[in-house]
Amino acid sequence: MTGRQVPPGPVGADDRAPGTTPGQPLPAATVARLPGYLHALDAVRGAGAALVTSERLAQAAGVTPAQLRKDLSFLGSYGRRGVGYDVDHLAGRIAAVLGVATTRAVVVVGVGHLGHALATYGGFAERGFTLAGLVDADPAVIGTRVGGLVVEPPAALMALVMRTGATIGVVATPAHAAQDAADALVASGVTGILTFAPRALRVPPNVEVRAVDVASELQILAFHASRHA
Amino acid sequence: MTGRQVPPGPVGADDRAPGTTPGQPLPAATVARLPGYLHALDAVRGAGAALVTSERLAQAAGVTPAQLRKDLSFLGSYGRRGVGYDVDHLAGRIAAVLGVATTRAVVVVGVGHLGHALATYGGFAERGFTLAGLVDADPAVIGTRVGGLVVEPPAALMALVMRTGATIGVVATPAHAAQDAADALVASGVTGILTFAPRALRVPPNVEVRAVDVASELQILAFHASRHA
Repeated sequence: MTGRQVPPGPVGADDRAPGTTPGQPLPAATVARLPGYLHALDAVRGAGAALVTSERLAQAAGVTPAQLRKDLSFLGSYGRRGVGYDVDHLAGRIAAVLGVATTRAVVVVGVGHLGHALATYGGFAERGFTLAGLVDADPAVIGTRVGGLVVEPPAALMALVMRTGATIGVVATPAHAAQDAADALVASGVTGILTFAPRALRVPPNVEVRAVDVASELQILAFHASRHA
Repeated sequence: MTGRQVPPGPVGADDRAPGTTPGQPLPAATVARLPGYLHALDAVRGAGAALVTSERLAQAAGVTPAQLRKDLSFLGSYGRRGVGYDVDHLAGRIAAVLGVATTRAVVVVGVGHLGHALATYGGFAERGFTLAGLVDADPAVIGTRVGGLVVEPPAALMALVMRTGATIGVVATPAHAAQDAADALVASGVTGILTFAPRALRVPPNVEVRAVDVASELQILAFHASRHA
């Protein structure tokens, strides 16, 4: 069956995230906005502020204050009228809900230009992730060092995932190799896959798939551009 | 002011897309799913089918049949009970609404590993886009040939956009250069920007921004992985 490419609806009460209000499901759309709030809180903290109003935080995250307050109310975080939110406390709460309060290991399958870009992107550590391993099927690439890691062959993937405790895999292969890469990641035990390949991946129901499809993003922009034309 | 990083709500009736039912606003979430339906229709057509049921199309697009039927009803496309949708007609209708019935030109600013990956990605043409130009500020990169195009300097951007009629720009620069790249794209006349830089871009209200933030996608996966743990 096809994996869920888009969070389809409210997360059921039985699947409730740690740190959320009992009995209150956490909508998938809210989950999708939490990383933005966490990123905005990091920026606020970097500017030296200990408190932040919903207006300022909403602006930094690119949402309306009403949307922000509603989303945070699902976490039981309401802020104080006229004072705002405690930056450290709120950031810790969101990180706990997202499961990134501790660092998570990520493995990347496919070390072409895109895999290179991911491996040399410096921003993972500050967002709660460690790039733990790189895998590619090309004998000319295996054994080379990229972003401080030695590229390993597909046969080493399961050992790599077990050694590093990786729970998330990134598919950065060409489209024709994406399903094989996803199958190998699932077999090795990861439960989350981020794919850049422009095709739907088949995964078991317990595995979550997020797809970044550049052409789809461009088509959404085209819709807005055609309204301007 | 900060550009809209996420479609914020229903598109007002005054901003109605071409081809949509009069008086019926097209929700932003529906717009965001249309590229997936179009891509799924292409796959169905590639398999030789002239008609497709909502169940089959929904499965190929990774949504529920009810979601698909509701989204398509906004376009005035209802299908026929027991028969389904006419593949060619529906694909043409979605392409018209998205504004990709004719090919759109795209320029990419930043030709590092990510820009390379975009320039050599073969899937744009079949999704309605032509990669029309590449721009980079690095003298060592300017003048080199990538994916069949010669990389041009930032000073050439406006002429490039005018020459190609590009309406969409992609920001594939390092984070520190992203705002400058966006400013240059806006000044040159593009109305849509796709950014991969992990920071909010400030753009005028008439410019639409879509942001692909890899770390945010990983955090959403971490949320689901932590529920499995």
